[in-house]
Amino acid sequence: MTWQFVSFPAAIIALLLALYFFNWVVQQERGSDKMEEIALAIREGTNAFLRSEYTILAIFVATMAVLLFVFLPSPVWSTGEPGKNVWLAVSYVLGSVFSGLAGVLGITVATRANVKVAHAAKDGLDKAFPIGFRGGAVMGLAVVGTSLLGIGVVYVLTKDPKMVLGFSFGASSVALFAKAGGGIYTKTADISADLVGKVELGIPEDDPRNPAVVADNVGDNVGDVAGMGADLFDSNVASIVAVMILGTALGKVEIPLVFAGLGVVASVLGTLTVRVGKSGDPGAALNMGTYATCAIFLAATLAASYYLHYDIRIWAATAVGLAAGIIIGTTSDYYTSADRTPVKKVAEASVTGTAINIITGFSYGLHSVFPPLMGIGVASLLAYKICEPIGEGYALFGVGMAALGMLAIVGMVVANDAYGPIVDNSRGIAGQAGLGDDVLRVTDHLDAAGNTAKAITKGFAIGAAGLTVIALLGAFKEVVRSATGQSVTFDLMNPVVLMGVLIGIALPAVFSAMLMLGVGRNAERMVAEIRRQFREIPGLRDGMPGAKPDYARCVDIATRGALHELLPPSILAIGLTLLVGFIGGIKALGGYLAGNIFSGLLLALLMANAGGLWDNTKKYIEAGAHGGTGSDAHKAAVVGDTVGDPFKDTAGPSLNTLITVVSLVASLSAGLIIKYALLK
Amino acid sequence: MTWQFVSFPAAIIALLLALYFFNWVVQQERGSDKMEEIALAIREGTNAFLRSEYTILAIFVATMAVLLFVFLPSPVWSTGEPGKNVWLAVSYVLGSVFSGLAGVLGITVATRANVKVAHAAKDGLDKAFPIGFRGGAVMGLAVVGTSLLGIGVVYVLTKDPKMVLGFSFGASSVALFAKAGGGIYTKTADISADLVGKVELGIPEDDPRNPAVVADNVGDNVGDVAGMGADLFDSNVASIVAVMILGTALGKVEIPLVFAGLGVVASVLGTLTVRVGKSGDPGAALNMGTYATCAIFLAATLAASYYLHYDIRIWAATAVGLAAGIIIGTTSDYYTSADRTPVKKVAEASVTGTAINIITGFSYGLHSVFPPLMGIGVASLLAYKICEPIGEGYALFGVGMAALGMLAIVGMVVANDAYGPIVDNSRGIAGQAGLGDDVLRVTDHLDAAGNTAKAITKGFAIGAAGLTVIALLGAFKEVVRSATGQSVTFDLMNPVVLMGVLIGIALPAVFSAMLMLGVGRNAERMVAEIRRQFREIPGLRDGMPGAKPDYARCVDIATRGALHELLPPSILAIGLTLLVGFIGGIKALGGYLAGNIFSGLLLALLMANAGGLWDNTKKYIEAGAHGGTGSDAHKAAVVGDTVGDPFKDTAGPSLNTLITVVSLVASLSAGLIIKYALLK
Repeated sequence: MTWQFVSFPAAIIALLLALYFFNWVVQQERGSDKMEEIALAIREGTNAFLRSEYTILAIFVATMAVLLFVFLPSPVWSTGEPGKNVWLAVSYVLGSVFSGLAGVLGITVATRANVKVAHAAKDGLDKAFPIGFRGGAVMGLAVVGTSLLGIGVVYVLTKDPKMVLGFSFGASSVALFAKAGGGIYTKTADISADLVGKVELGIPEDDPRNPAVVADNVGDNVGDVAGMGADLFDSNVASIVAVMILGTALGKVEIPLVFAGLGVVASVLGTLTVRVGKSGDPGAALNMGTYATCAIFLAATLAASYYLHYDIRIWAATAVGLAAGIIIGTTSDYYTSADRTPVKKVAEASVTGTAINIITGFSYGLHSVFPPLMGIGVASLLAYKICEPIGEGYALFGVGMAALGMLAIVGMVVANDAYGPIVDNSRGIAGQAGLGDDVLRVTDHLDAAGNTAKAITKGFAIGAAGLTVIALLGAFKEVVRSATGQSVTFDLMNPVVLMGVLIGIALPAVFSAMLMLGVGRNAERMVAEIRRQFREIPGLRDGMPGAKPDYARCVDIATRGALHELLPPSILAIGLTLLVGFIGGIKALGGYLAGNIFSGLLLALLMANAGGLWDNTKKYIEAGAHGGTGSDAHKAAVVGDTVGDPFKDTAGPSLNTLITVVSLVASLSAGLIIKYALLK
Repeated sequence: MTWQFVSFPAAIIALLLALYFFNWVVQQERGSDKMEEIALAIREGTNAFLRSEYTILAIFVATMAVLLFVFLPSPVWSTGEPGKNVWLAVSYVLGSVFSGLAGVLGITVATRANVKVAHAAKDGLDKAFPIGFRGGAVMGLAVVGTSLLGIGVVYVLTKDPKMVLGFSFGASSVALFAKAGGGIYTKTADISADLVGKVELGIPEDDPRNPAVVADNVGDNVGDVAGMGADLFDSNVASIVAVMILGTALGKVEIPLVFAGLGVVASVLGTLTVRVGKSGDPGAALNMGTYATCAIFLAATLAASYYLHYDIRIWAATAVGLAAGIIIGTTSDYYTSADRTPVKKVAEASVTGTAINIITGFSYGLHSVFPPLMGIGVASLLAYKICEPIGEGYALFGVGMAALGMLAIVGMVVANDAYGPIVDNSRGIAGQAGLGDDVLRVTDHLDAAGNTAKAITKGFAIGAAGLTVIALLGAFKEVVRSATGQSVTFDLMNPVVLMGVLIGIALPAVFSAMLMLGVGRNAERMVAEIRRQFREIPGLRDGMPGAKPDYARCVDIATRGALHELLPPSILAIGLTLLVGFIGGIKALGGYLAGNIFSGLLLALLMANAGGLWDNTKKYIEAGAHGGTGSDAHKAAVVGDTVGDPFKDTAGPSLNTLITVVSLVASLSAGLIIKYALLK
């Protein structure tokens, strides 16, 4: 049980450091009353969303827990071991609670750090930066700490990696709500606020008269901080549990837990290395932190492999995963970076008109899928081939370790990612509170660094998701093998598998369509409410003193609508998976999972990169190219950016979660499907 | 050799009827000199494109023929049978020549029928309709006649279905040029003419002052008539050759040839049933023709199965394919039809603005992939399960027969499809020549019928392509089996296969991106030329007598550019396939082909349906909804339509051809790859 001496201390150290950073951030000076008032509105809106979300989530989790208890791993009336059903349900609830806790901690600090960064920016970059980074690090450390702790606790109590699948499914449920629900929320608010405020009434962005302005700011926290944290919590847990299951038959469950623990230690040390001088470069500091984390992780796992007598090939597969993550991250950057060909070409195309901007941006988005898909393919092949000589079953285990390797630095990734919206929010607060150009220059600098860091960490997240779902497919195969006693293959020329693949390919497309159409419907409701307030609240449009918009009402509409629009696609995803499984059987289900991975990766990459490309094209033009703000090129670029918004912030990022949820549902219900499927 | 008594007479009857229709159309009255002048310009432009295209195509075909001779089926220096190399090269050339001939015949009659339809429209619908339909039928009958004749000739001479693969590859080469090249051409001309003419100078569509107006009209013929004909020639041949290869080991090569022959007979009889009264409904007449063809085909093949003692299950699998085609056709129609929810919702969204139009249309496009993917999956599963009990190898043979069943009525499909641009062109000529409202009403009516018929036949084409490429994958597997003596499987959990799939998924995305970016670059060149002519030709802008634009120059630029932009993606497709094969081996190549099918189908369906949806949304608004022409909603819908243009007319339809080309390259070079691949 060596792993317990690594994982538990690592998780606890991470959580302690998170708490220390949390307190440190809270103790920083809070700025003027005006700043605090703005921040408070954002904080309250965010809390309002989280309360509603967690209420519905609690009902969802309770329902699922009852279903899990009744039916899985075997129907409770038919099994001699009802205890297993209890444990699975409990693990599921624990997974959702732990993920939820990490989210609450992260968002609490993020909605406090923003105003403090703005205040500290008065004293210079070196004062403001640590608040932003440590605020983000709270989320990063909380995610890795709670996920590892939770996995450890469930595994210690049940001694069964399949029970950890339940924990993973709990985390996925939270991620689905946070990512897809948050994604619908943030774009609803963003689009509605712009449509009525900027377009219809001509009042500026972030104007306090706009009833949707708070909802808009809330959206950033909800989508980028809470959503992203839950997403990576989910991927992290899924990758660990996949390797645990693949390692069970080999007696190697220990290795993923030890390596994951060392990853947490590396993230802890990595966050401590991040610092910046008075005239330093915060972007470089963040990237240095990422590279330091990688180096520490590789050294620590190499040492562990030596002392604990793990086969060096397993370490090599892990290293391949990490290296692939870096390569994928840097190539993805090419397609969205302002100083590269794609952004420049799309900006040029914007001069010719809106349609050409859309076509060109979409084309580069299609282009951009090649390097990461190639990278994921080559990484999984290398990992497989490296570990194949160890013995039967090790090859797939190696693929899982590569995924785990990519996710080893997840603490640092989340820290960098959560830093972004904090400094972005601080810029908004500095602007609204009128802190002047010097302060804005500092917050802009901090903001730009966040975008640079994000480009690389986003590549990691995509690559890791790709390898993780492949490992999950392997875990599904292993679950089936251990249930039936014989190995199953998914031959593409088997028509049952093929039918599964074809249906599986369609799901991510339909799922993202439903989310994006949901944004549209929800925005219609919210636009009506904003118009109503401007019409019915006397003096609001003219900004008369005392005429205050009802921010809470808009937050409420965006919240309810997001959660309302989220349920149909979620139920479709779970329902279709069970339908394919119970009608087509295990072979169809295997093909279906693969199909989900194939089109999920394709669409996620396309949407994320095209969205980022359109966003940066708009910024590139706003920085002065092709006539700058107000030019025809700019107008075209604004439309492109709006099209890209739900691509990159709603549909694209939800697809990772979708694939994970679908894979977990399949693995959890594999036993039942083997027994009761129509086609065998 | 029963098949010879069916296929050859059927092919010859089809060709004779095509010639009869050709002469009949040519003998119709030609209309006024003004009309003839307009028609002549279109005809000359079309011929100019075809000349350039066939010149480059000839060089390409010659190069490929030499490469085939040198390397395939085995390097000519290493084989004891150089005769096989000669035959393969000859079959390849024959395939390209036969496909080219059908294209020339079809386009020659189409560019003559258009003006005659316009002229006959003066005497009423019942006079004009037969000219349009028979003009289209020439193409349809020529396609099925020459393809079946060519296959028959090659097979009689070589007795080797693998040589027919060469014929199929020849047809694919033409299709790649006609479909992708024609697609780039038509959108280049369309976008450039609109940008300079309508947007910059404010002159109306189809104005003879616009130097690009001829190129624009030429584009319709080049893309819709020649491109579509070559595409379906290609699919038809590929489906027949795939089943021949699958049937070789079973000794059942005869069945696909007999069934395909009966399909030709059914199309011949079907075209003869199409007629319309003075106040009849041309749309219903076209659909009746399609249904009659289906019924005749089913009855004839059932009778043949009885008399020739074919297993009835094979007939049933064929019937499943045909039925699936009809179902897919009618469901696809839902997503693009003006009286259904998607078009109405996108029109509503257009009121809110351009970005929402794009997001909503794209979302419904994503939605639309579900029914056809499901249909293809279920049809292939059914066909497989129906034929499985006959014996080993029959299951995949059944899938191939289902594809052949869908394509059985291809003669009728092409006839209906080619009818569309003929009557569309006739409407343009009637408008430009000022024939008055009564005539326009008739040509509008004819045009609308073409669109209705097209909706269903398009579904056939998509479904058939899906099943055909699955059959081609089966043929690839069979080629490998017959070369190595052992059956190969493509297990999704094999990392070599998986890597192949991941790379395969990326190719259709990158390929369509290159085509669409090519349209953009080509349009830039053409816009510059149009501006130059307006600047340098005195009096052109004001329409002074004697100031004539240089139409030929624009045609030339569009032509050269299209062919120039077509080569890099084509070479990429062939090169990447060989690279994956020679590095990753047969397993990687099988995965790669499957990946191509998966993302190719997804993207083709998405692009075709989203494009059609945007197009019909614009028309729906122009018909008066949401403020009609000139309203803000209309402006948004115009942008959506322009985005959809390269989706539905360039990238989307080229993907079928891409998948076929890639599959054929793989099957043809399988022998070499087995010997020389890096990974075995």
